[in-house]
Amino acid sequence: MGAAESVLAGDARALARLLTWVENDLPEGRLALDELFPHTGKAHLIGVTGAPGTGKSSLVNQIALQYRKTTVSPQKRVAIIAVDPSSPFTGGAVLGDRVRMRDLAGDPGVFIRSMATRGSLGGLAKATAAMAQVFDAAGFDIVLIETVGAGQAEVDIARLAHTTLVVEAPGLGDEIQAIKAGILEIADILIVNKADLPGVENTERALRGMLDLGHPVAKIFRGHGKTMSLTGSEPVGPAMWLPPILRTTATDGTGVEALVTAISQHGQHLHQSGEWGRREHARLEAELDLLVTEMLVSQFRAGLPEARFKEVLEQVVQRKLSPWEAVRVLMDLKVD
Amino acid sequence: MGAAESVLAGDARALARLLTWVENDLPEGRLALDELFPHTGKAHLIGVTGAPGTGKSSLVNQIALQYRKTTVSPQKRVAIIAVDPSSPFTGGAVLGDRVRMRDLAGDPGVFIRSMATRGSLGGLAKATAAMAQVFDAAGFDIVLIETVGAGQAEVDIARLAHTTLVVEAPGLGDEIQAIKAGILEIADILIVNKADLPGVENTERALRGMLDLGHPVAKIFRGHGKTMSLTGSEPVGPAMWLPPILRTTATDGTGVEALVTAISQHGQHLHQSGEWGRREHARLEAELDLLVTEMLVSQFRAGLPEARFKEVLEQVVQRKLSPWEAVRVLMDLKVD
Repeated sequence: MGAAESVLAGDARALARLLTWVENDLPEGRLALDELFPHTGKAHLIGVTGAPGTGKSSLVNQIALQYRKTTVSPQKRVAIIAVDPSSPFTGGAVLGDRVRMRDLAGDPGVFIRSMATRGSLGGLAKATAAMAQVFDAAGFDIVLIETVGAGQAEVDIARLAHTTLVVEAPGLGDEIQAIKAGILEIADILIVNKADLPGVENTERALRGMLDLGHPVAKIFRGHGKTMSLTGSEPVGPAMWLPPILRTTATDGTGVEALVTAISQHGQHLHQSGEWGRREHARLEAELDLLVTEMLVSQFRAGLPEARFKEVLEQVVQRKLSPWEAVRVLMDLKVD
Repeated sequence: MGAAESVLAGDARALARLLTWVENDLPEGRLALDELFPHTGKAHLIGVTGAPGTGKSSLVNQIALQYRKTTVSPQKRVAIIAVDPSSPFTGGAVLGDRVRMRDLAGDPGVFIRSMATRGSLGGLAKATAAMAQVFDAAGFDIVLIETVGAGQAEVDIARLAHTTLVVEAPGLGDEIQAIKAGILEIADILIVNKADLPGVENTERALRGMLDLGHPVAKIFRGHGKTMSLTGSEPVGPAMWLPPILRTTATDGTGVEALVTAISQHGQHLHQSGEWGRREHARLEAELDLLVTEMLVSQFRAGLPEARFKEVLEQVVQRKLSPWEAVRVLMDLKVD
């Protein structure tokens, strides 16, 4: 049986192996992805982002537990992809899987995978997208994509998701709040975690203020989300989504049931408003762009001897060519 | 007089205009960059990174003031590029130039420029590199490149610098410290700012522990920095650089003089060890890679009608083609 077939048949070891192939961008991983792709498009992809110190990982665990607790059958299967773009040199993920496993160990309906940064940022977004596709095809209903921080990397990864959760916590300071204005704009649901700590009202008030401030148009149309085309001809639909602000305490699970309900409501909103399809479209377009770029670069490198590249680079180092002049020289050198 | 000539002649308005062209990647900016490039290679590029809340911007101001205070003549001219990659949607830089200008206003030897994220991350790194070149050619001796946060974006931008400062502050919590293991590896000088706050000893101890922990080889050879080739044949030089940990209080300038001395010592170390040249080489190679990629993508787009791209994307959305299959189809469609 091929790798893709084994994964479709529910073989957990084949799944783990394929995820490794995909993370390392091996050819056998690409082949399996081609076979699995027609089976994708069913999972609800949920991005979870927020600064270190917000208790985000514990919250992700609790969300997974909540989905598994639900008595409705069939129970949802949950995958967690924990991405750590802030650790570009160390290789290993900081957030230990072992800590996670204590809560979720032994549940075959939960699969957890950590990934530290590999190579370029584009590489990370690509690997995350591919992993989400593998889980989707393997029949996981919920794919939680957890990222650390609030930079462009997190935003790129959040774009993969249907629903984006932004996690805050009391006491992180006004400056941190201010700096996060950008990340708030991608939030479908805002969460004040560690809601048992003092200052929770202040944090909630600050978030509400920021939601209402600065971008009235973005606010009004927030329900139509990040893929809405301001120049497109489609009418602005009737259904609107205003990001709720929810309180949770991940350490004891308070508020997590309400959060999972809100996620489900957002999923329904996406389907009813047609936004689900628009986000799928934008996501696949971004992925295609990334893969095309990668292919162009690898074709170019294959056609240009390394020694020639080094010669041209040396002329740049010696200031005989400017970088742009060097690019033009390299394009002419390229053997098609 | 052309834009490049005006900048070389010291025209501040021409400089400001060129920076705008460069930030917006206009063709006239590229032309001027080609002309200016032979005049680059003299400035000391200093990257400053660290989490929000560390008082990084105030510290950058103080460093600039310190350089201007120095009685040795000729006085150094200082440029500040404040990059904010955590604000991808809002457009404007969060850190107000007006606040900065209070300290540095009216000094023609200081030039400050803020830049929020524009387009892709690669775009940001490219624009920052180009701006640094403009300042370098315009005769600024010191170019401070300040970024917010500790993600891949900051690391990419730090790679532009000869000397990278990582700023911490007391009381940011153990989790934040742990998460920063990656960013520490790019630090040439570590700073505990807000050193008047309680907990400064703990922060310093935590940093020292992290420096010594985990990567003994990286630690031993840290002086040879991020461009050291572990497989290369060049001998490991005798001069070593162990990142010092310095305390500063940016609000009153305490410790800033010692910091500027350390920066200058690091610059000397880079020159004596040959590392300055290696970092220049790595930096220009990264820039060339980025520009080649951009050129390939724009050539590809020019050769492929938008409607054909959309058709192929539609087949991906309908799961008739996998993303990689779609890339192969697009490559065949491409009209050269």
